[in-house]
Amino acid sequence: MNPVAIAEPLRSRWSPSVFDPEHVLSDVEITRLLEAAQWAPSSGNRQPWRYLVAPRGSATHEALVPHLSRGNSGWVPRASVVFLSVVELGQDGVELSDLLIPTHDVGQASAHLTLQAQAMGLAAHQFGGFDHEGVAAGLGIPDTARVLAGIAVGVRGNPAEVPERDAVRDHRERHRRPLAETAYAAWGVPWPRLQPSGPTVAERR
Amino acid sequence: MNPVAIAEPLRSRWSPSVFDPEHVLSDVEITRLLEAAQWAPSSGNRQPWRYLVAPRGSATHEALVPHLSRGNSGWVPRASVVFLSVVELGQDGVELSDLLIPTHDVGQASAHLTLQAQAMGLAAHQFGGFDHEGVAAGLGIPDTARVLAGIAVGVRGNPAEVPERDAVRDHRERHRRPLAETAYAAWGVPWPRLQPSGPTVAERR
Repeated sequence: MNPVAIAEPLRSRWSPSVFDPEHVLSDVEITRLLEAAQWAPSSGNRQPWRYLVAPRGSATHEALVPHLSRGNSGWVPRASVVFLSVVELGQDGVELSDLLIPTHDVGQASAHLTLQAQAMGLAAHQFGGFDHEGVAAGLGIPDTARVLAGIAVGVRGNPAEVPERDAVRDHRERHRRPLAETAYAAWGVPWPRLQPSGPTVAERR
Repeated sequence: MNPVAIAEPLRSRWSPSVFDPEHVLSDVEITRLLEAAQWAPSSGNRQPWRYLVAPRGSATHEALVPHLSRGNSGWVPRASVVFLSVVELGQDGVELSDLLIPTHDVGQASAHLTLQAQAMGLAAHQFGGFDHEGVAAGLGIPDTARVLAGIAVGVRGNPAEVPERDAVRDHRERHRRPLAETAYAAWGVPWPRLQPSGPTVAERR
């Protein structure tokens, strides 16, 4: 069980590794997920996010799958759709440090997309293990932008159908470090008014 | 009104600029907000986020306020608590490019915190306008970490009590670009199956 008192859909969210390879998301459902991302906040309302939309079987999906890492090549292609998040700066010659806040904001938009999926009875699992340069070349992503992550979305499938590695990953307990190591009054000084908090270990559903 | 069919608390979330300067968040409420962030996903479960917790009137708050930009110095101090998000790499000599995915993940955790606030009947407004180096020096943040953003959390206050600039900002319409400029099949090619979608302009509540 997830820790108590966190609101839905935050509370139930986790990242399954076993998707149903027959399930198809409707175009309306995919659009709703993108709308949830669209209304995320961003610095100066710059909306630095772009998403490549890759439903299973689409040309975009076919351009992605060969670039998946070995660890992701089994479970990711079973998902109904993969979104690739990209941070876009719209101009050449930017410093890498200029990417930090836009990248932070893409993370927010992807969190919104992921939580919208959870609220719609779907599951989402984000991943970074793929050849980012290969994907950028295959999908025409310019130098003013940078691929950040994939978000696999679908419904849960049958663990008996997948390699043991993925089935095991799907059942691992979830861990977080204690809040006293996250919440500070000054650096390294735990915020002294933290209240007894939920467990830092939770079972997968 | 926000666009239809986005789930709560995503749907109602926006960023007010007028907070009630008398409202106090309990320690339990602050802890819940941090727990929501704690259970966000991250690459390799590295949980790269740290939060400085600055309730109004605390020493942490007093260390922050003098560093706020002029545009933020009016409204931010009225909020009940400010969280400062920090990305932590835990080692020296990292390349700036190593910061991108952790920074993305801090954005996710901050989205979770913000949405938890919304679900608890609170309001959250993120901001970047402050002297990051001054804050880092004042709060002892080391070179292995980088301050990213502030998150002001509280309840809405009376617009008649604040400078006109902040009251006006509080009532501006919200805008987003059309989804066809965000969702691609290949770079610059709108995903062709986008469905008619909600409005791209929404009133503040």
